[in-house]
Amino acid sequence: MQQEFQIATRGQGLYEFTSELRQWLAGAQLQVGLMTLFVRHTSCSLLIQENADPEVQGDLQAFFARLVPPSNDPSMSYLRHTYEGPDDMPAHIKAAIMPVSLSVPICDGALGLGTWQGIYLFEHRDAPHQRRILAHISP
Amino acid sequence: MQQEFQIATRGQGLYEFTSELRQWLAGAQLQVGLMTLFVRHTSCSLLIQENADPEVQGDLQAFFARLVPPSNDPSMSYLRHTYEGPDDMPAHIKAAIMPVSLSVPICDGALGLGTWQGIYLFEHRDAPHQRRILAHISP
Amino acid sequence: MQQEFQIATRGQGLYEFTSELRQWLAGAQLQVGLMTLFVRHTSCSLLIQENADPEVQGDLQAFFARLVPPSNDPSMSYLRHTYEGPDDMPAHIKAAIMPVSLSVPICDGALGLGTWQGIYLFEHRDAPHQRRILAHISP
Repeated sequence: MQQEFQIATRGQGLYEFTSELRQWLAGAQLQVGLMTLFVRHTSCSLLIQENADPEVQGDLQAFFARLVPPSNDPSMSYLRHTYEGPDDMPAHIKAAIMPVSLSVPICDGALGLGTWQGIYLFEHRDAPHQRRILAHISP
Repeated sequence: MQQEFQIATRGQGLYEFTSELRQWLAGAQLQVGLMTLFVRHTSCSLLIQENADPEVQGDLQAFFARLVPPSNDPSMSYLRHTYEGPDDMPAHIKAAIMPVSLSVPICDGALGLGTWQGIYLFEHRDAPHQRRILAHISP
Repeated sequence: MQQEFQIATRGQGLYEFTSELRQWLAGAQLQVGLMTLFVRHTSCSLLIQENADPEVQGDLQAFFARLVPPSNDPSMSYLRHTYEGPDDMPAHIKAAIMPVSLSVPICDGALGLGTWQGIYLFEHRDAPHQRRILAHISP
């Protein structure tokens, strides 16, 4: 069973879509299985993170912005893939560090997430993008 | 087929549970399949790493402690989610960098691990925690 | 359905094997499923990245070489696992940061990759290695 999810992003940051996934799963009436998510892009990531305190999301974004500064920052002058904008190559690097695919077991008909876990798309580009995520359920 | 594994951690570090997984798999008498692991927390990680020289585990911990210092370190003064302790936000960041889910093919009735690969829970918090990992076997 | 792929590496860098995977999938005549890849080593990674501009691959390698310098670099003097060469412990660290397993849904008989996505082995060691990747297809 497969479904494509689309997320319209408005710049760098985390976009939660746990409830969309739960709604889809509810329609499937499946008790046990495995849900795998795959993002079809190389400049954003999937991430499971705390969805309680929104400051966690801000701090995650701040950390990765410091770890991988824009390519016009003097510390990044060694980068050569710069013609798509100063946020492009850093986006590819962040997409190498954080997941392109994730799998979550389905137990008793629900996603087996922990109490504080939410599922996010982490957008690494500045401009708005339409992001596509494939979701697949295996037995 | 699903099973929950629990690991009692005693501070930051790597806790191997390959043998517990092998024992569970032996009971399943399954020849071919896919084992997926999912950790139900946002402040620890799953990791497959060398299980030969224990200094590798110490070095991994040392590297990530330097990459993501505690939030009371002057270099991390930009972090805002600090009320759960100086090790909490760094734990969320490490949990974004290292896997929340892992999949290992089952071949000839055994985990398809390489010679030196072991499966670990990587605890990022200082205090003892009871960590829960969901294991799912797909055909 | 499982297959082992072998890649002969000639030093650090990215080695694409998307076409080998597509060829194997074509033989399977499967319309819908999930392909999971698992690398049986602790000093290289799997990576899905842009396969359009080869400078992206060079920049990725350059970033990770700076993030995790060789163990004989003064900044890495805290590392203790050094007897396998200055590139060994950094390889284990990079293997903790980037994926050991990846899953890609199969849609309409093809890998559900985005337009610019290619699948790579990222070799972190300097010497040539024969790398083994297990591929598993679940329904």
